[in-house]
Parts: sequence; structure tokens; C-alpha cells
Amino acid sequence: MTTKKTPPSPEGASGPFSELHPPVSHWAREVRPIDPGFDPAIRYRLDHLTKPLGSLGRLEEVALWYARLHGSDRPPAPKGTCVVFAADHGITAEGVSAYPSSVTRQMVLNYLGGGAAISVLSRIHGFTLKIVDVGVDGDLDGLPDLVHRKVRRGTRNFIKEPAMMPAEGIRAMEAGMEMAVQAAESGATLLLTGEMGIGNTTAASALAAALLRHPPEDLTGTGAGLTQDGKLHKIRVIDEALARYRPLLASPMDWLFSVGGLEIAALTGFIIGGAVRRIPVVLDGFITGAAALAAVTLIPEVRPWLLASHMSQEPGHRRVLEHMGLSPLLFLGLRLGEGSGAALAYPLVVAAVELYNHMATFEEAQVSQAGPG
Amino acid sequence: MTTKKTPPSPEGASGPFSELHPPVSHWAREVRPIDPGFDPAIRYRLDHLTKPLGSLGRLEEVALWYARLHGSDRPPAPKGTCVVFAADHGITAEGVSAYPSSVTRQMVLNYLGGGAAISVLSRIHGFTLKIVDVGVDGDLDGLPDLVHRKVRRGTRNFIKEPAMMPAEGIRAMEAGMEMAVQAAESGATLLLTGEMGIGNTTAASALAAALLRHPPEDLTGTGAGLTQDGKLHKIRVIDEALARYRPLLASPMDWLFSVGGLEIAALTGFIIGGAVRRIPVVLDGFITGAAALAAVTLIPEVRPWLLASHMSQEPGHRRVLEHMGLSPLLFLGLRLGEGSGAALAYPLVVAAVELYNHMATFEEAQVSQAGPG
Repeated sequence: MTTKKTPPSPEGASGPFSELHPPVSHWAREVRPIDPGFDPAIRYRLDHLTKPLGSLGRLEEVALWYARLHGSDRPPAPKGTCVVFAADHGITAEGVSAYPSSVTRQMVLNYLGGGAAISVLSRIHGFTLKIVDVGVDGDLDGLPDLVHRKVRRGTRNFIKEPAMMPAEGIRAMEAGMEMAVQAAESGATLLLTGEMGIGNTTAASALAAALLRHPPEDLTGTGAGLTQDGKLHKIRVIDEALARYRPLLASPMDWLFSVGGLEIAALTGFIIGGAVRRIPVVLDGFITGAAALAAVTLIPEVRPWLLASHMSQEPGHRRVLEHMGLSPLLFLGLRLGEGSGAALAYPLVVAAVELYNHMATFEEAQVSQAGPG
Repeated sequence: MTTKKTPPSPEGASGPFSELHPPVSHWAREVRPIDPGFDPAIRYRLDHLTKPLGSLGRLEEVALWYARLHGSDRPPAPKGTCVVFAADHGITAEGVSAYPSSVTRQMVLNYLGGGAAISVLSRIHGFTLKIVDVGVDGDLDGLPDLVHRKVRRGTRNFIKEPAMMPAEGIRAMEAGMEMAVQAAESGATLLLTGEMGIGNTTAASALAAALLRHPPEDLTGTGAGLTQDGKLHKIRVIDEALARYRPLLASPMDWLFSVGGLEIAALTGFIIGGAVRRIPVVLDGFITGAAALAAVTLIPEVRPWLLASHMSQEPGHRRVLEHMGLSPLLFLGLRLGEGSGAALAYPLVVAAVELYNHMATFEEAQVSQAGPG
């Protein structure tokens, strides 16, 4: 199935990406530094709520993270918007997925019909859900509840040629940024990331291996349900692609466009958009983690805006989170994607912030504080 | 502070407990076996929902657990009732807690006033919250929202004499059973366990050490905020108490009444009540774990009704859960009690059941299934 012809580089071995892709260099200037000015007030309140010091564990870190990013010691109640970006992958022609590409389109219809996991979680946990077609290889015209931003019908097969042309990748990133801006204007105070794309664990593993300079075998799993043989084949495909691109590609953007996906590029734009619009971002699993890795590699100042919802079964997820210094909230053995992990962590973030905002202090409740232990 | 006099046994080195304590032997007969008859139908549905096989990880186990216990492949939506049992501990006279006993009463008022963690979590996650005084050492008369079942004003100092007389312990257990029955009659489909009692990690560590026949130093932590010196003192107090009772006590009930607490005995009754009334029970942290250990030691058939919400920072919690073969859902470094861990896991249980009940199947959503990987 694979060709021995060296694939062309999308832009050659190029200089710093920021000279090449003005939208991202512009975004980079818009990510302003975090203001830690409220940290003492936030910590003071955390330490004076009616509970033993530090007894809410990780939730206290989450409350501090959220309040600091909202620049307030009395931050707004969390109001989440989850955006699921969907796209197909040319690399599926190499037999790297347990499901056919047609499932991407079918699942988009399932999201809109309310039957998918993320649809159910949106209903029971009360966050807004938006589904965006950035590159599904199928007809989704005329669906009013779908956000139509199709760049092309799936990426190219990246073992033969770059997955996207730079202009296509930029369009996908801009769609992501647009969704973050839209969420901000609708009053979202928290962004949840989601994705659907048959074949996208292959793209994410290739992208993570390239950006982390790590062997693909450590970053590649069974995706939605490959056998062990299937996984070995997937690793060989990624290895071959990376070997071909490595002499040609230099910048993270080159890699994102050459071996990534349209939904991964859109997520990269969406995550950067969170930092630009100053809205904290909850990551989902491995795919959104790879997109976050691309975002943070491009613009390191994006990092503080991120929270890792869970640790998935995909082995690459751990590496990507460790590299970014992110420690997940949940360890449930999930490997579904769609934003389901972010959605399951959402009530924990809500709880962290509502506990912080609404618990009484020792003084208010007239409760005695700890004596010398 | 401690006496060298050997404490009396509450009932002497006695035969099988069931001959001694008719209410519990009666309850034991009421715990009917689990019916696994719906398991194949539940597993079939789990495997045909629109997601890769097993991709919801632990949540699939939780859905199976809940549906099996409700004896249905379409179980009722979770409707939780959290009961917080509060009581004081005579052992606090030995200086084993960072907080004074008066905080137990103050915190009960805080629960009722809505300012405590469990109050906030009840509001945001929508479960019913009941607060029961089974032994607070202070005046709580006339509060209409409090359930008044005070057995006595705190336990006795168990380093000097048994914490409870058998009749007192039984009354506390019956109060717990009564709350389970009441929750069942109000339509609860899930019980959440909670507790408040300054000094109760000392009682729980002593009880767990006795029932597990494990050295107290492995089961004793800093509670609500002891120093390391404070913890070493706490271990010495427990060691001394256990050494004195060990030659005299035989049955788990003896231990529960001699070194436990009124809220721990009530929780034991409440947990048994879940199994008797066939309502699954979500445990909180170390204290409710020790109560569950007592319940399971008395009536092993209670075990399948239990779910561990989280792994607390108290070292005894891990031992107790491992002994019962329970694997917690959350690892957040909590050590607050009150039912806060159970409350934080509640949205995960709700999500597991609602996903199971309301996701579309592949057939319903016309989504293709996995091919050979």
C-alpha cells in the first residue's frame, strides 16, 4: 500500500514557523501572561474554608487554577462549552483502524441525534455541546445543528504525501480559533475539547512522536480496538512516515500539517483560542493531548491554560501529558474520545469552583480552627 | 492520661456474634443473594452501545454493578441519598486530634446551614442530604432539619473502658438501618455514606487494626491535621488499647463497640441496610471504609453492594479497601470525610448509568461496527 517515493515537504526545511504563518504568530502575541496577583487571596480563602487544611486535595489545585486564570478571588461559576471537531484521515487506507472511515460521519449524526456518549454527558452535566465538521469524508450538508467548516474531505494519506497543504491546515486552525471566540462571546467560562476521526490515533501518535522526538512504538496503542498485530502494523506505518519526513521537516507546524489531522489542527487553534480569549481549557484524551502538545510547542504560554481531565489507555497520552507537566484528574481506563473524559471531569471542576465559592469560612460558620496537632 | 487497669469486655470472649445480637443476625438473614440473571443482557447492551468495546473503562463496571444490583437491564436513573452520621469520641481526651470535640457540633450546624462541603455538593449534584446526630457531645435539640437519634453524648474513652455498651452500639446500628429503610421508602436508588466526628480516624484505625489483625502503625494517619509527633502518639494510644482488649475480645461486634464510634456503628447498620433493602451503597473515605469492613466482617453478603468512591490520604483506607477487594473510582488526595468523596463520585455513577441507559446502540444509530483489527 505504501510508496517508496519521498514525499514532498509542505514548505521545505524552513525557518522559524512564526515567519511563515502569520495567524499563529499573531495569536502568540495575543496570549498575555497569567496574573498571579490574586493567588494570595485565593490561597487565603482556600485555607479558611470549613475543612482541614488541604483536605480537598486536587480540587484545591483546580479551584486555584480556575480562579487565577479568571483573574479573581471570586471567579464566575463554571459554564462549559464542549466543541467536538470531526474529520477523516487518508492514512486509514493503510489499514490502521478497527473501524471504517464511514463511522466518522455516522458518529457525527449520532452526536446530533443525542445518542452518543458526549450527547448524553452534555445533557446530564449541563454543558453546551457544539459539533464541527472540519473535514469529514462524507456528505453532511444541510444539518442545521452542525457547524460547517469542512476544509476538505479528509486528509491525504500521509505515508504518500503531506496530510494537508499549509493553507488547509491554517483554515482548520482558524475554525478552531473561531469556535473558541464564539464560546467566549456566548459566556463560556470553561472550554472542553472533543474530537471524532477514524484513524486519528495514528495521526496523533505520529505527531507526538515527531514533536517529542520519541520512538513511535512508545506512543502507539490499539486505538478504538486493533489487535496486537494491527498495532504493530500501525507502528510500522508511522515509523515509515516519520523516516521520510524527518530530513525535510523542521517546524512543529510542518509536522502538524504533514502527519496530523484537520480536527487536530482545529483543536490546536481552539486550545490556543482558549489562551487568547483567557478561558481555561479542559483536555480530553490522547488526540486532544497531541493537539495541546502542538499548541504548547508553538506557543509555550498556552500551557497554564490547560487542565488534563483523565489518563487514557493510549500509551502516548501519558508521554504527552508528562512532557507538558500535566497531571490528570481521572484514571478510569477510558479510550473513547469525543470529549467524554473532559465531560466526566467537568462536574469535578464545577465542584472545585463551587466549593471554593460557596463553602463557609471558619469565621462565618463559627467553627473552631485546628489547635497544635 | 491512660490507666493501667484492664478494661472490661463488653460481652466477654464470646461465641459467634449472631447468637448474641439478634438484630444483626436477623439482618443477616434478610440479605438475599445477588441475582446475576441480567448480567448477560447488561453486558450485551454495554457491548452494543455506539462506542468501541470497553472504551468507557471503569464506568462500564459501575453500570454493570448498578444494573445487576437493581435486578434489571434497564435500571432506574440514580437518585442518591447521602446520610451523614455525627458523633463524638471519648478518645479525644488522649490528645489524638488536631481539632477540639466541639467542632463536631459546630460542623453539624454548618451542614444544616449549607456552608459545609457536603452541603454545597448536595446542592450542585442534586442528591438528598440527611444529617443524623447519633452521639454528638453537645446540645442540638430543637433543630427541625436534624435527625435526632442521639444514643449518648459521645463514646467513652476506649483506652479506659469500652467505647459503648452493647445496647448503645445496637441502638446506633439500628439508627443506621432506620435511615437506610427511610431512604428506600423515599425512592432512593443509591445510598451515599458520610460521617463527622472529631477523633474518629483514631477509632477507625483501631477498629481496622483489630478486624484486619494488622499493626496500627500501618493503618494510622494524621487525620484532620496532626503533626508527625501527634501521629506517633495516636499510634501509641491505639497500640495500648488493642493490647488491652485483645485477650478479651473475640467477635467483630465486640471490637466495633469497644474501639469504634457511635457514627461508625450507625454507618455499619446503614451499610447493612443498603444490602437488606437492596440499594447499592457508595462508600466515602477511611471512616466509612472501616464501617464497611465491620459490616462485611459481620455479614459477608454485604460486600457486593459496595462501591468505593475514592482513595483517601489516610493510610488505613487502602488496606481496608484492598481487604474487601474494592477499587476506588477517584484518586484526588481527599481527606475531608463528611461524605465528600462519595458525593464527588456521585456524578460519575450517574454518568455511568445514564450512558448505559441512554446511549444509542450501533443498530439504533446506524453506525458500522468494528471490522477485524
